[in-house]
Amino acid sequence: MITKQIFPLTYIFSEIKISLLTVTLIGVVVDIFPIFFPGFLPDIPISIATTLGIAISILISFKVNQSYDRWWEARKVWGEIVNDSRTLVLQLKMYMDPSDPIIKTIAYRQIAWCYSLGQSLRKTDPLKNLGGLVSELELKQLQSQKNVPLGILNFQIDPIRKQFDEGKLDGFSRLQLEGTLARLTASMGKCERIKNTVFPTTYRKGLHLAIYLFVIFLAMSEPLRLFVVLEVFILVIISMVFFFLEKAAFRLQDPFENQPTDTPVTSIARTIDINLRQLLDETGIPQPIESNDFYVM
Amino acid sequence: MITKQIFPLTYIFSEIKISLLTVTLIGVVVDIFPIFFPGFLPDIPISIATTLGIAISILISFKVNQSYDRWWEARKVWGEIVNDSRTLVLQLKMYMDPSDPIIKTIAYRQIAWCYSLGQSLRKTDPLKNLGGLVSELELKQLQSQKNVPLGILNFQIDPIRKQFDEGKLDGFSRLQLEGTLARLTASMGKCERIKNTVFPTTYRKGLHLAIYLFVIFLAMSEPLRLFVVLEVFILVIISMVFFFLEKAAFRLQDPFENQPTDTPVTSIARTIDINLRQLLDETGIPQPIESNDFYVM
Amino acid sequence: MITKQIFPLTYIFSEIKISLLTVTLIGVVVDIFPIFFPGFLPDIPISIATTLGIAISILISFKVNQSYDRWWEARKVWGEIVNDSRTLVLQLKMYMDPSDPIIKTIAYRQIAWCYSLGQSLRKTDPLKNLGGLVSELELKQLQSQKNVPLGILNFQIDPIRKQFDEGKLDGFSRLQLEGTLARLTASMGKCERIKNTVFPTTYRKGLHLAIYLFVIFLAMSEPLRLFVVLEVFILVIISMVFFFLEKAAFRLQDPFENQPTDTPVTSIARTIDINLRQLLDETGIPQPIESNDFYVM
Amino acid sequence: MITKQIFPLTYIFSEIKISLLTVTLIGVVVDIFPIFFPGFLPDIPISIATTLGIAISILISFKVNQSYDRWWEARKVWGEIVNDSRTLVLQLKMYMDPSDPIIKTIAYRQIAWCYSLGQSLRKTDPLKNLGGLVSELELKQLQSQKNVPLGILNFQIDPIRKQFDEGKLDGFSRLQLEGTLARLTASMGKCERIKNTVFPTTYRKGLHLAIYLFVIFLAMSEPLRLFVVLEVFILVIISMVFFFLEKAAFRLQDPFENQPTDTPVTSIARTIDINLRQLLDETGIPQPIESNDFYVM
Amino acid sequence: MITKQIFPLTYIFSEIKISLLTVTLIGVVVDIFPIFFPGFLPDIPISIATTLGIAISILISFKVNQSYDRWWEARKVWGEIVNDSRTLVLQLKMYMDPSDPIIKTIAYRQIAWCYSLGQSLRKTDPLKNLGGLVSELELKQLQSQKNVPLGILNFQIDPIRKQFDEGKLDGFSRLQLEGTLARLTASMGKCERIKNTVFPTTYRKGLHLAIYLFVIFLAMSEPLRLFVVLEVFILVIISMVFFFLEKAAFRLQDPFENQPTDTPVTSIARTIDINLRQLLDETGIPQPIESNDFYVM
Repeated sequence: MITKQIFPLTYIFSEIKISLLTVTLIGVVVDIFPIFFPGFLPDIPISIATTLGIAISILISFKVNQSYDRWWEARKVWGEIVNDSRTLVLQLKMYMDPSDPIIKTIAYRQIAWCYSLGQSLRKTDPLKNLGGLVSELELKQLQSQKNVPLGILNFQIDPIRKQFDEGKLDGFSRLQLEGTLARLTASMGKCERIKNTVFPTTYRKGLHLAIYLFVIFLAMSEPLRLFVVLEVFILVIISMVFFFLEKAAFRLQDPFENQPTDTPVTSIARTIDINLRQLLDETGIPQPIESNDFYVM
Repeated sequence: MITKQIFPLTYIFSEIKISLLTVTLIGVVVDIFPIFFPGFLPDIPISIATTLGIAISILISFKVNQSYDRWWEARKVWGEIVNDSRTLVLQLKMYMDPSDPIIKTIAYRQIAWCYSLGQSLRKTDPLKNLGGLVSELELKQLQSQKNVPLGILNFQIDPIRKQFDEGKLDGFSRLQLEGTLARLTASMGKCERIKNTVFPTTYRKGLHLAIYLFVIFLAMSEPLRLFVVLEVFILVIISMVFFFLEKAAFRLQDPFENQPTDTPVTSIARTIDINLRQLLDETGIPQPIESNDFYVM
Repeated sequence: MITKQIFPLTYIFSEIKISLLTVTLIGVVVDIFPIFFPGFLPDIPISIATTLGIAISILISFKVNQSYDRWWEARKVWGEIVNDSRTLVLQLKMYMDPSDPIIKTIAYRQIAWCYSLGQSLRKTDPLKNLGGLVSELELKQLQSQKNVPLGILNFQIDPIRKQFDEGKLDGFSRLQLEGTLARLTASMGKCERIKNTVFPTTYRKGLHLAIYLFVIFLAMSEPLRLFVVLEVFILVIISMVFFFLEKAAFRLQDPFENQPTDTPVTSIARTIDINLRQLLDETGIPQPIESNDFYVM
Repeated sequence: MITKQIFPLTYIFSEIKISLLTVTLIGVVVDIFPIFFPGFLPDIPISIATTLGIAISILISFKVNQSYDRWWEARKVWGEIVNDSRTLVLQLKMYMDPSDPIIKTIAYRQIAWCYSLGQSLRKTDPLKNLGGLVSELELKQLQSQKNVPLGILNFQIDPIRKQFDEGKLDGFSRLQLEGTLARLTASMGKCERIKNTVFPTTYRKGLHLAIYLFVIFLAMSEPLRLFVVLEVFILVIISMVFFFLEKAAFRLQDPFENQPTDTPVTSIARTIDINLRQLLDETGIPQPIESNDFYVM
Repeated sequence: MITKQIFPLTYIFSEIKISLLTVTLIGVVVDIFPIFFPGFLPDIPISIATTLGIAISILISFKVNQSYDRWWEARKVWGEIVNDSRTLVLQLKMYMDPSDPIIKTIAYRQIAWCYSLGQSLRKTDPLKNLGGLVSELELKQLQSQKNVPLGILNFQIDPIRKQFDEGKLDGFSRLQLEGTLARLTASMGKCERIKNTVFPTTYRKGLHLAIYLFVIFLAMSEPLRLFVVLEVFILVIISMVFFFLEKAAFRLQDPFENQPTDTPVTSIARTIDINLRQLLDETGIPQPIESNDFYVM
């Protein structure tokens, strides 16, 4: 997540440099062409370009909208993970003997699940940093799992069933704990859905095509037959707005890509880590993750 | 689901070739007409065409929006099917004796349901690939069912009632299992709703009419009275953006049509297959379905 | 629900003939007027008309959007009715003795409720076709009910309470059955809300006013001072797109009006009829309702 | 709620008369000004006015959208109140002895709550018309309540707790009844939220500013330098569309203001009154509230 | 929350004064430039500026939309806090002995939680004004908490477990109370999500860039080559609409910033304070918070 209102121009530039180069090229070609082939290219009325410009704005607006929705949904799901993690520990403290060490085991495993889910979504090692949160044996068993977070959730089932079988947990309480685990399963599935569903690529193609057409028609427009440098400058600066917004939308739509625009899953997992340890009345609480330069992961 | 950012141009072309041919024809007729009947067709101001162009962008934007929503809803429902399938097995492991073979029977039947639902929505044989997942007897009984996935869900009722009657399952647990089955019933119903509800055709008619009017008025516009080939080229390339976006929306709105743009139900069913088998601690896990060329089913 | 991509032009025409006639009249009057009163009507720049045209597109787009949402919500509610009807029977089979004849009685009453709700929403006789699904006595009692479907739901309460009092149903099961009935009550209420809430008429007035203003300003536009027939033709064909889309939206917003664009409630009720009978292992399943000409009710 | 498609023009006019007067004034001033100070006011190109016109359409479209959402949400909440009122009585009949007079007491109090909530939202006397629905004692106690509907809900707690304490109601049933009361509490809170949250006024200011700028720039536009009466007429008629739509949105956004555009809470409360009395098998059912002139409250 | 339709112009001006100054500067530079370097700056057609103007309207409309949604969501969450606070006390009165002093303790702690959450979101002292609502000991323990409202919720667990252990509360009741606490935990998490998630800054950059480009191109437009003061005046007044709407959206998107546009969390907490005390049949009810000048906090 980008946290600063002011962030390096180099970041913006690195995002759209290829598109701007193509626009420069188009501008130069359209301008130099008539020198060698006079009378070949017609003067196009500027209203075709302006119409395309408005059409592109409408289409980008739709794309930004949908991309924002995906990004916001991803953030909402991680918000629910925060809520259900807290609720899980509050439930354990309400339903079980507060001095039972199993509460700490389940809470630590929940912290591990949060870290692991974030890493798994970003396609980094899902087992990193889990030492101390799950047992050595569990860590080993998780290595053969194709879906590590699902494997961790699976571990949570056993102690709850055991507590129930031993009469330490009644039917109502088990029902509520199971409900919380089911919601966490659902949150995990929602993240995987956002990660694995490619935003319709056909739409992006249509939009790119429209922007390049806009540049070409604008370059050929009669009232813009100025000298080359100025015309290219105008083409670049106007198309830059479109390309930048399109790229910003593109980044938002995939929030688990190990990019500065990601949902800050590591930072959120750390918040959960802090909250759960405080609910367990522990000392030695870890520090929140600080904003790194202009973004936080 | 189209998985690649770059996909064959032939695919795009095959989608909109008839529309482009019609536009070419309109362009040629409007251009040749005045040669035979001079003075008959008036010069129309280009602002009528540009206004229509903006109007079409607004209407397409709405259509893409609604189509995207249907497509995304379909994907969400299948995400819930993933979640509820996992939850079902986690519940069975928590509520029943983990060594009871009935758990495996119910889980396999759930896998069968996922495959069958996908095939049923795509109007392919809903009983294909179910061997080994449901018993021979069940397979036979399903043949007389008009709605095979509903028939499979029906089979899940019996063992749960029996476990309850035999005292192996308490009231709380049965309640939760029944809740999960009710959610799966609802997910199935949601898919059927999307499949069976025709997106309002009247709207599409209005949009198509508007695009063709746009082409005609643009062709008759005074400033575009260039020589035939160039004018037709401009008409085709601009209307192509509209037709392509409209067709992309059209594909999205029906996500269970056995098309490359479909929700990848077979691939999701396979993921569920893998997950449930791992939760059952099985070996011999099947492989995920690979992207076929530029899309995955 | 209109099911065919191609439907009769006469249907479109019959929907908007009055509006088109008015436009023709406006066109003729504006064109003939200057012949008798030369110099009275000024030449208006076409950009006022084009601006109005874009404004109308934006407003229509909003209206189509909201109307589509109402229509889609109506369809969703009926989808939930399908789901809850199936769930009701699955629950009865899970919670009660599967051989108890009360299951069939409740299921048939549920089918009756579906048919009756659809007929009641369309303001046709809510008691039609209920013979054989509810008893003669019930049919008679329903005649004094102002809200027949609510009366049928009321009948479902008694047998469930009786089963519980006789110890054939435990507390958990009654709770779930009551929950399903409460969801059905809610679905009924949602349909009534859509039926009884008039879509804000003020908005439609504003939109119509804008379209007629558009036609008048376009007719008075300087560059469109062509000969009468052609000008009127252009006015009619452009305003037709607006009127058609507005009428299409108008039809969508009221989905229970006994119109071809209705939510196909009779057809859905029949699907439920078929599903429930198959879940009861009956033979003599009725046929699905076929598409009638170009639509299905 | 306005129920008729045709409603008095005087209603429209009374809604926007001040705005139209201001526009007339602006038009006259801009037109007369150059007579006294020739050459002072420049001729502005009309494209500035048309751009503003399109911008205003976009902004109004957003506002209508959000206002409609508030209005529709208010209607939905009252739909849920209908559903939960019916469900409450169905639950009482299922869970308690159907002949117990407490059912009637609770049902009548629920009817009183509906009437009172509507009157409270409209800032009219919340205790009016409650005679016969709550006891004299309760009516007196309610007079000291700052929130009368919350006070009525509070009265529903006691009899349910008493029934449970006397063993006439089991734990499951109390749970469901309490759930219904919690949903009614939530519905009340939602209405209060809509009532008490002022729609962002800054946005309205920006929109009004834009409309007046539009009128000024349009009046100063070169091609509109017609004779005064006609120009003012055009200004008034075009800005009327904007003002009317903005006012329509304004009315929708506050649906509990004792205005013709209100959510018809009195009429809905009467429907609940009728439904609950029929569920209680009473005679002497009151009549539904008829549409008053062109609207229903 | 701004409560008055009329609020000081100085407030508007203070919000956008830097942007307007920049626009003035741009206008003056573009106008004076050709005096020193004649023939250097070309005359740009005004349609580029008007196209940018429409594009900006579309983009602002999207931004206002998303910002409004965040603001409305924040308000909804606080509406749910109102509902769940009331429900909590109604549940306590239904499930526990109404004369038990623990009800008052829990209710007061809930009031403390509401005040504390609001103060915590606004980054003011979360422990202020809690005296008399929580015990001295609790107040001290809260000082070491990184998340004070979570700490208060944690205190609610103990008495409920104790009541259950002492047999004063049955399983059903505990389940419902825990459910209400879980919903309050979720509401707190939702507020934190809105507070901590930075609205995508890249989008705002793109929008600002577009507005400044619009101003530059408009200033250089041929038909606007009027004398300096008037041209700058027109530039400022048109761009003012854009900047004002953008700023209004910016304010809405962050509703917990101790600004006049904030969600009125203190006022809502006071309403809860009043309601809960009336449900406890207390006297000495505090007064609602009055609108301060033109807004309420």
